[in-house]
Amino acid sequence: MRMYDIILKKRNGGELSKEEINFFVEGYTRGEIPDYQVSALMMAIYFRKMTKGETLALTMAMAGSGEQLDLSMIQGVKVDKHSTGGVGDKTSLALAPMVAACGIPVAKMSGRGLGHTGGTIDKLESFLGFTTGLTSDKFIDNVNRIGIAIMGQTADLAPADKKLYALRDVTATVDNMSLIASSIMSKKLAAGADAIVLDVKTGSGAFMKREQDARALAEEMVEIGRNAGRKTVAVISDMDQPLGYAVGNALEVKEAIDTLSGKGPEDFVELCITLGSQMLLVGGKASLEAEAREMLRGVIADGSALRKFAEFVEAQGGDKEAVYRPERLPKAQIVRAISAPRSGYVSRIVCDEVGLCSLILGGGRERKDSAIDLAVGLVLCRKVGDYVKEGEPLAILHANEEKRALEAEERYLSACTITETIPKPKPLIKTIIG
Amino acid sequence: MRMYDIILKKRNGGELSKEEINFFVEGYTRGEIPDYQVSALMMAIYFRKMTKGETLALTMAMAGSGEQLDLSMIQGVKVDKHSTGGVGDKTSLALAPMVAACGIPVAKMSGRGLGHTGGTIDKLESFLGFTTGLTSDKFIDNVNRIGIAIMGQTADLAPADKKLYALRDVTATVDNMSLIASSIMSKKLAAGADAIVLDVKTGSGAFMKREQDARALAEEMVEIGRNAGRKTVAVISDMDQPLGYAVGNALEVKEAIDTLSGKGPEDFVELCITLGSQMLLVGGKASLEAEAREMLRGVIADGSALRKFAEFVEAQGGDKEAVYRPERLPKAQIVRAISAPRSGYVSRIVCDEVGLCSLILGGGRERKDSAIDLAVGLVLCRKVGDYVKEGEPLAILHANEEKRALEAEERYLSACTITETIPKPKPLIKTIIG
Repeated sequence: MRMYDIILKKRNGGELSKEEINFFVEGYTRGEIPDYQVSALMMAIYFRKMTKGETLALTMAMAGSGEQLDLSMIQGVKVDKHSTGGVGDKTSLALAPMVAACGIPVAKMSGRGLGHTGGTIDKLESFLGFTTGLTSDKFIDNVNRIGIAIMGQTADLAPADKKLYALRDVTATVDNMSLIASSIMSKKLAAGADAIVLDVKTGSGAFMKREQDARALAEEMVEIGRNAGRKTVAVISDMDQPLGYAVGNALEVKEAIDTLSGKGPEDFVELCITLGSQMLLVGGKASLEAEAREMLRGVIADGSALRKFAEFVEAQGGDKEAVYRPERLPKAQIVRAISAPRSGYVSRIVCDEVGLCSLILGGGRERKDSAIDLAVGLVLCRKVGDYVKEGEPLAILHANEEKRALEAEERYLSACTITETIPKPKPLIKTIIG
Repeated sequence: MRMYDIILKKRNGGELSKEEINFFVEGYTRGEIPDYQVSALMMAIYFRKMTKGETLALTMAMAGSGEQLDLSMIQGVKVDKHSTGGVGDKTSLALAPMVAACGIPVAKMSGRGLGHTGGTIDKLESFLGFTTGLTSDKFIDNVNRIGIAIMGQTADLAPADKKLYALRDVTATVDNMSLIASSIMSKKLAAGADAIVLDVKTGSGAFMKREQDARALAEEMVEIGRNAGRKTVAVISDMDQPLGYAVGNALEVKEAIDTLSGKGPEDFVELCITLGSQMLLVGGKASLEAEAREMLRGVIADGSALRKFAEFVEAQGGDKEAVYRPERLPKAQIVRAISAPRSGYVSRIVCDEVGLCSLILGGGRERKDSAIDLAVGLVLCRKVGDYVKEGEPLAILHANEEKRALEAEERYLSACTITETIPKPKPLIKTIIG
C-alpha cells in the first residue's frame, strides 16, 4: 500500500477502505508518512468529502492511535458530555455535580481554553490548590468514591488526531464536517465512556455559525458514536450570545455555584437540565425526560448537587470552602460598569466578541502557552431582548489593568446593538438528535 | 501576507494575485514555507484550477527563482525547441543541425532520460568523448562559431519548479494543465531563447494520452509564452507508436545521422521538417512555410546539415568520425529479430511499452542515478499499418544480456497487435497552434 495511491484515489472521488485509512493514520502517527502527503489528502477530502464508512474508519483509527482509557473499574454506566465550545460555557461545572448527585458516574477528561472560548480546567483552577494531575488509579478511585473526577487530556489520547488537527489548522483544511466530527469523536471514544451526550453550539460565539452546519455536525457525530457502539445524543443549543451572565474563569465558577444553589440564570439552568436529563436517560437513571428533569431539579433544591461539587473540589486538592463562600475565589482590582450609550432593547450581542473581551482582559489564551488571569472577565447585566436605559449598566467589567479595561469596554460596546424595537426571541434549545 | 490565507483563498475559489504567487514561490524556494502548506495549495489548485493570469504569474515567478540565461551575446534570433517527451524521439539530434545550417542559432539546454522516455544528452554521449559540461563562455562561443551548443540543465535553472515538481510528484498533484504548462515554460523562459517551438506529443507513448489534453496543454503554453514576450508555436504530433524506427540511444543517433544523410524514415523526416519550418518562421529566416520546408530539404540534400552535426559533435569533444562512420558508435553483442507470431497488419504498437522494452534492455533509467547501456534498444521493422508474414521480423533487438533480451522480446510481442484488417491511418501532425 502506498500513500500516493491513497491520495490519488481520494482525489479522483474514490472511497477509501478501512485498511487504507488505517494505513495512513498509523503511518502518519509513527512519522513514516510525511506531513506534505497528509495535507494533500486532507485537501482532497475537503473537496471530495468522506462517506459515513470512511468517517467511522478514520475516527476509530484515530481513537486507537494511542492510549484508550479503560473505565471498567468504575461501577455504573459512564456518561461523558462534550461541548463544541462557546462563550460563558461553564456547563460542565454545574452539570457534573448535578448528574453525579443523581447517580451517574462522571469520569471526565477536559481541556484548557484557547482563543475566545474558555476551558473547564482553567475555570476549576480558580479554586486554590485544585489540580487535574491525577494518576489513573486516583482518578478511578475518586469516581467510585464521590462520583466525579476530572483530569486533563493525556498526551497519548488519540495522538493521531492531535497531529492531524495541528496540520489541518495550518493548511486551511479544518472546516470539513466529517473531519471535525471524527476529531471530536476520536477523543471521546478513546476516553472510554459508555454513552456520550454532545452539546453542539451554534451562533456567533460557536465554531458552527449556522444552525444547519451544527445540525449536520451533530448528525455525523451521533452516527459515529452509535456505529462505534456508544449511546450518543446531541443537543443543539444557541451560542449567539453568551451563556448565562458570567464570562471569565472565576466569574463563571461563581455562576455555576449560584446555579447549584438554585439561583442560576434561566438559560443556563435550562441547558443544564436539558443536557442532564439526556445523560440520565442514556445512563439508565430515568426512563422519561420529565422524570429526569424532576430528579435534577431535586438535587439542586435539596443541596446535594452543591455538596457533590464541594466534595469533588476537595478531592482534587481545591479550596472546598470557596464553594460555600465564593468571595474566596480570585477577585479583580477594577470592577466597574459598562454603561448603555442609549436607551432601547439589546437586540444583538456578537458572542465571539464578548469572548475576545475576556481574552483582552487577560482571561483567555492567545497561544497555547499563554498565562491567564483567573479573576478577570465580564458579567452581563442585560441580555438579548432586555430593555436598558441610557446610562444604566450593560455589563460589569472585572479587570486588573486600566488599559485592558478600556480596550475591552470599547470592544464590548461595539459588540452590542441597541434598537428601538424588541428583537424576535430565539429558542435556547434548537433540537435534540439521537 | 500569510501562506495560510493564500491556501484558503484558493480553496474557496478565489484568484491569487501576482503578489501572492510571488510570495509563495519565493518563500518556498528559500525554504521558509513548508512542503505541507504547498502540497495543500497544489491540491486546492488541482480542484479549483488556475486562471490564465495566475498561470502566467506562477510561470514567471518560477522562471525568476534562479539563474536566468542571458543569450544576448549570441547573434540572431535564438529559437528553442521543446518536446514533451516520447519514445524514439531523437528529433533534437537531427533538427538542431538542420536549423543551424539554415542560420538559426541553437543554444539549447537538454535533459537526460527517465522511465520510458529518452534524453538528448544520453543519446549524444554515444559519441565517445562527447561532453555537455561547458562553461557559459564556451557555450556562447560555440553557438557563435558553429551555430549549435547543447548543455545540461544547470542546477540553478528554475529551482522553484524543480522543488515544486518533486513535491507534486509524491502528492498526486501533477496532472493539472496549468501546473504542467507553467513547469515546462518556466524552464524555457529561464533558458533565455527569443522564440520557442513546442512539440507536444499525444498518444500511448506520451504524457498526454488524449489529443484534447495535448491541445489544451499546447494552448496554455503558447499563451504563457506570448504573454511573457516570446514568440511561441506548438505542434501537436502523434506518439501513439514510436517515432521513426529506432528506440535506444546509439540506435537513435544512427537514425538521426541517416536522416541528415537523406535516408531518414518518412514520419521522422516529416516531423523534423514541420518543427524546423516553424523554427525558421519564428526565427525570421523564412516568411512562408513552403519556403522554410524547401530550405530544410536543401541543407539535407547538400550535406551541410550533416557537416554541421559533425562540427557540433567535435566542438563538444565527441568522436566526429562516427558521424560519417556510424559503425564506430556503441554496438550490442546480441542482435536478433523478433518474429511475427502470425500474418496480418500491425494495427497497434503500445508506445510506452516499447519505451519500457528499451528500459528493460538497459537503455533507460529507472531512477535518476541509474547507469545506462548506450548500445541496446530496438529497431522496428514494421510500423502501424504495415503487413507482416508469420515468421518475418517485427523488430530487431539489440541487447547485451540474454535474460533481458528474452524479457524485452516477450514484452514487445505483447505490445503489438496484429489483425486481419488494415488499421485506419492516423496523421503524424495533428495541428499547429500559434
